[in-house]
Amino acid sequence: MATVINLGEKFSRFSERWSPKIAARVNDCHIKLVKFKGEFVWHRHEETDEVFLVWDGEMTVHFRDGQALLRQGEMIVVPKGVEHKTSAGVECQAVLIEAAGTVNTGDAGGDKTAPGNVWI
Amino acid sequence: MATVINLGEKFSRFSERWSPKIAARVNDCHIKLVKFKGEFVWHRHEETDEVFLVWDGEMTVHFRDGQALLRQGEMIVVPKGVEHKTSAGVECQAVLIEAAGTVNTGDAGGDKTAPGNVWI
Repeated sequence: MATVINLGEKFSRFSERWSPKIAARVNDCHIKLVKFKGEFVWHRHEETDEVFLVWDGEMTVHFRDGQALLRQGEMIVVPKGVEHKTSAGVECQAVLIEAAGTVNTGDAGGDKTAPGNVWI
Repeated sequence: MATVINLGEKFSRFSERWSPKIAARVNDCHIKLVKFKGEFVWHRHEETDEVFLVWDGEMTVHFRDGQALLRQGEMIVVPKGVEHKTSAGVECQAVLIEAAGTVNTGDAGGDKTAPGNVWI
């Protein structure tokens, strides 16, 4: 029998920011939980779309041609290959859905690159 | 620039039960919204895992070896090929994540089979 995953309880287990944790796998995708505040780096994922769903707080997704504010219960799909950057004025808790194995900084790399295969 | 999807607003747009609506696509998966009450049919999806995330209300996922109650903010992954049946005592609003093209009744077919490619 499959296990019930309580997302609120999973979020309560960590406080580290900018370091997505894997909560589940569905086919070739991981469902990850992430907390963040401040500004990330511009990057793109050449091999995967990326969904952001705001669980708590709010976040902005910046694109080269505009930006989108997401509040609790709102989501966006960043298509693969599209350059983007996330930011949050207060801490945001978000659910990510993207290909398993995706690196958080995409093509950019750098010191914000998080370990890629941490389950919670 | 990508579009912001407000899940609560999407749910408010339909009242039909047992008929998943597509809210977004991420790679080969659809993210669907569904409302239901009562009991579904036993079935399996041979080609895809299936995530249920309860948005409002609660639901039970029945397996041949047990059952799992999911409340708001809880999710479960039904692995591909695993027989299951959903039920809800009061209306449940749930988010599904599964391969694009998945038929709601899987291998079972029958009169609960919903149109498979309806966006909301």
